[in-house]
Amino acid sequence: MKKKYKISDYTLLCEITTRWRDLDAFQHVNNAVYATYIETARVELFKRWGIPGSNTGKSIIMASLQIDYYLQLKHPSVLTVGQKIIKIGNTSFEIESVIFDKEQNVICRSLVVAVCFDFDIQKPVKVYDSINNDFNR
Amino acid sequence: MKKKYKISDYTLLCEITTRWRDLDAFQHVNNAVYATYIETARVELFKRWGIPGSNTGKSIIMASLQIDYYLQLKHPSVLTVGQKIIKIGNTSFEIESVIFDKEQNVICRSLVVAVCFDFDIQKPVKVYDSINNDFNR
Amino acid sequence: MKKKYKISDYTLLCEITTRWRDLDAFQHVNNAVYATYIETARVELFKRWGIPGSNTGKSIIMASLQIDYYLQLKHPSVLTVGQKIIKIGNTSFEIESVIFDKEQNVICRSLVVAVCFDFDIQKPVKVYDSINNDFNR
Amino acid sequence: MKKKYKISDYTLLCEITTRWRDLDAFQHVNNAVYATYIETARVELFKRWGIPGSNTGKSIIMASLQIDYYLQLKHPSVLTVGQKIIKIGNTSFEIESVIFDKEQNVICRSLVVAVCFDFDIQKPVKVYDSINNDFNR
Repeated sequence: MKKKYKISDYTLLCEITTRWRDLDAFQHVNNAVYATYIETARVELFKRWGIPGSNTGKSIIMASLQIDYYLQLKHPSVLTVGQKIIKIGNTSFEIESVIFDKEQNVICRSLVVAVCFDFDIQKPVKVYDSINNDFNR
Repeated sequence: MKKKYKISDYTLLCEITTRWRDLDAFQHVNNAVYATYIETARVELFKRWGIPGSNTGKSIIMASLQIDYYLQLKHPSVLTVGQKIIKIGNTSFEIESVIFDKEQNVICRSLVVAVCFDFDIQKPVKVYDSINNDFNR
Repeated sequence: MKKKYKISDYTLLCEITTRWRDLDAFQHVNNAVYATYIETARVELFKRWGIPGSNTGKSIIMASLQIDYYLQLKHPSVLTVGQKIIKIGNTSFEIESVIFDKEQNVICRSLVVAVCFDFDIQKPVKVYDSINNDFNR
Repeated sequence: MKKKYKISDYTLLCEITTRWRDLDAFQHVNNAVYATYIETARVELFKRWGIPGSNTGKSIIMASLQIDYYLQLKHPSVLTVGQKIIKIGNTSFEIESVIFDKEQNVICRSLVVAVCFDFDIQKPVKVYDSINNDFNR
């Protein structure tokens, strides 16, 4: 099943280097840290889309996070997060993220449902044009 | 939709206190930290089931994590994680976790697919009896 | 040497509960996490002193952190952080923090040099009166 | 004062890339995260010295950590941690670490007192030869 994800299918790429602290008592990278890797990559998209880094004005919030874990990770590892906008709705959109190791093994696959949200009025707003431009890119 | 989760439906409860560092640059509790809250609660179940806290012998690994975010969280907050085993397969099982704040609002709902895994032979094994005993508890 | 710290010498107390994720691959609470415990306690003082939780206006920044580690920590543990302002200068002051476990063993002792800092003008400012009021309390 | 630290004085170098999650609610890299950067660099030395990554046998534990903070850090930043063993005692030794940004500004300077410790007998042991070999390197 994980075979279907290939790094060449992604043009939005972000490199991540593990840290020793990413390991937990089981001596593998902790499950929640994968979410942090994916977030680091996602925030690069936010910048690309002109989203401010504070809780004011037009921003993006998370509605849901799904991570399927395929391989355990050791430290040190150099990873690549490939991202793709795979669905766009009225106020929300979906980001698929796949983490690959140096040998291009699939470490995990994630799906984030994000909502365009105006912190000033505390309400969802129409998906920003900059995101539409990256749809299926 | 989130209305359906009530704290009284859960008997496996774990109290969590937020830390200032749980906030991110948006000044809300970071999305990955919810996974850490849920993990803290899950590890209490592991102890209850006699799972050792190291990567040797019979343990439990995560196959997938799903979190639906309902409410933004501020610090300080005192939270309760309610957990329930809602499905048991041959080698895997599903834990539903719901985080409630002090007013019993639903902060998020999570579903973890976990696999009984023997680190020594690096293979999934039959779901442990201790977990079966907690099914739908 | 650590014998000299007694919980009864502190009136500014903050309770901390460990999380499983606080452990690192050595299966003890990670050294940097102690800094997070101490910070959680320190932020309670910030609130007491009316310091806003954002990088605008009059705030407090850290000039230095010293932690002496006395005992290794396991999860789960319930801890108490005792704090005292032990020195006040013109624009800076020193907070002593001692972490005790439930049996009142001294886990670590920390000294933070903090600087009253105005983010708007990006300069240190005179120590706030609210801090002076807590000197040696 | 911070002027005296030059990257050319260090031969043990480790590159660190910030993550968005390293920021806290003040939108700067959190103080405890500096300790994690320094630890990531330190663990490279541990490997160099043949220290196992688990709490068994001959290892190294921390007696104290001192960090002097010179500059606030934003994300994204690429950092270099320079390390030097500046003192060796009977069972303990001192590691100086300085974090530089890309323009070679000094972000912080840290001093760690580490103790050679045998987890099996739970006692400090004589400083390992491999560490002596790196003294003032």
